[in-house]
Amino acid sequence: MTTTVKINILKTATQAAWIEQAINNLDTILLDHSHCERKAASCALNLMFRYPSNSYLVRQLTPIAKEELEHFEQVNDWLERRKIPLAPLNSPPYGAELKKLIRHQEPERLLDSLLISALIEARSHERLGLLAQHCPEPELAAFYHSLMESEARHYGIYWLLADHYFDREIVKKRLEELAIKESEILTHLYYQPRIHS
Amino acid sequence: MTTTVKINILKTATQAAWIEQAINNLDTILLDHSHCERKAASCALNLMFRYPSNSYLVRQLTPIAKEELEHFEQVNDWLERRKIPLAPLNSPPYGAELKKLIRHQEPERLLDSLLISALIEARSHERLGLLAQHCPEPELAAFYHSLMESEARHYGIYWLLADHYFDREIVKKRLEELAIKESEILTHLYYQPRIHS
Repeated sequence: MTTTVKINILKTATQAAWIEQAINNLDTILLDHSHCERKAASCALNLMFRYPSNSYLVRQLTPIAKEELEHFEQVNDWLERRKIPLAPLNSPPYGAELKKLIRHQEPERLLDSLLISALIEARSHERLGLLAQHCPEPELAAFYHSLMESEARHYGIYWLLADHYFDREIVKKRLEELAIKESEILTHLYYQPRIHS
Repeated sequence: MTTTVKINILKTATQAAWIEQAINNLDTILLDHSHCERKAASCALNLMFRYPSNSYLVRQLTPIAKEELEHFEQVNDWLERRKIPLAPLNSPPYGAELKKLIRHQEPERLLDSLLISALIEARSHERLGLLAQHCPEPELAAFYHSLMESEARHYGIYWLLADHYFDREIVKKRLEELAIKESEILTHLYYQPRIHS
């Protein structure tokens, strides 16, 4: 499989206000990022638990889960270097709002789960890219840059999984609907600095 | 930290009947093993979720979760080579019975969770060792042997975590109680071939 899948699925680009909020709160963004990586690993693992017989899904998601844990460690190294203690952070509405869009019946539940993961990875890719571009600390900016390629690969894999299990037209139609909602959720900047505020 | 921690915590050795059952059902044991590795990764991740501020715990458990996923992949490679499709398998009572022993109040909940994970890893270490020793297929036997060291390391880490957060005397006393129960659960061989039957 190619690792350079490029799929422009986001409906709207991140607003400048988010960049400003993030750059002014780099420590909180790093801590939230740590939580995001752990949640992403958990999300991949949960899908593997829910569909244990879907070999293709299980085999594709295992390296994603491993890589998210790898990133989780790297972000935690950064936190340690900056003497930011690990601590819980309340989540912005983003994840919970997206989760509500997952239909409860199969096979729609699988399709929606895969596409929402694809959208989250795509948005993370975009926002890490913005951090790489705007972060005033060159070493931290380089770190964000180093993570971007994986996020792009991950959203490609989630898209390919959807495409493997479902008819392409159905995937495209549903992705379109979900992508519109994803952008809507981000219209109002969350008051606390988060990767997905 | 040393990686050669040796702690003999199991109260009784696995009975010969388990070895016979396992050797006669190598394919089912491999499939169950795949589930065990995924569950072990999930268990480490769940603890990281439950105690996000305990840096020492989070940093020690991340490599365990990664390694369990690595083993999960390796076991799935074996399944693929033997043309055994991934499929759900009902679990033996072992895990659920152990989980019932976890007290609900903190800090006892953390202590019990760590010690039960230590016991499960210790038992897995023992049983993979038995498979390495008795498996009639040399290549598969070598594979089991290759996993043993990690399982030993994992149970050492869970024990060290308990020792880090709790008074050693309290850890020893509770481990003694739980180890007795763990052996009791395994007294009657489960009728289906499983790693923890």
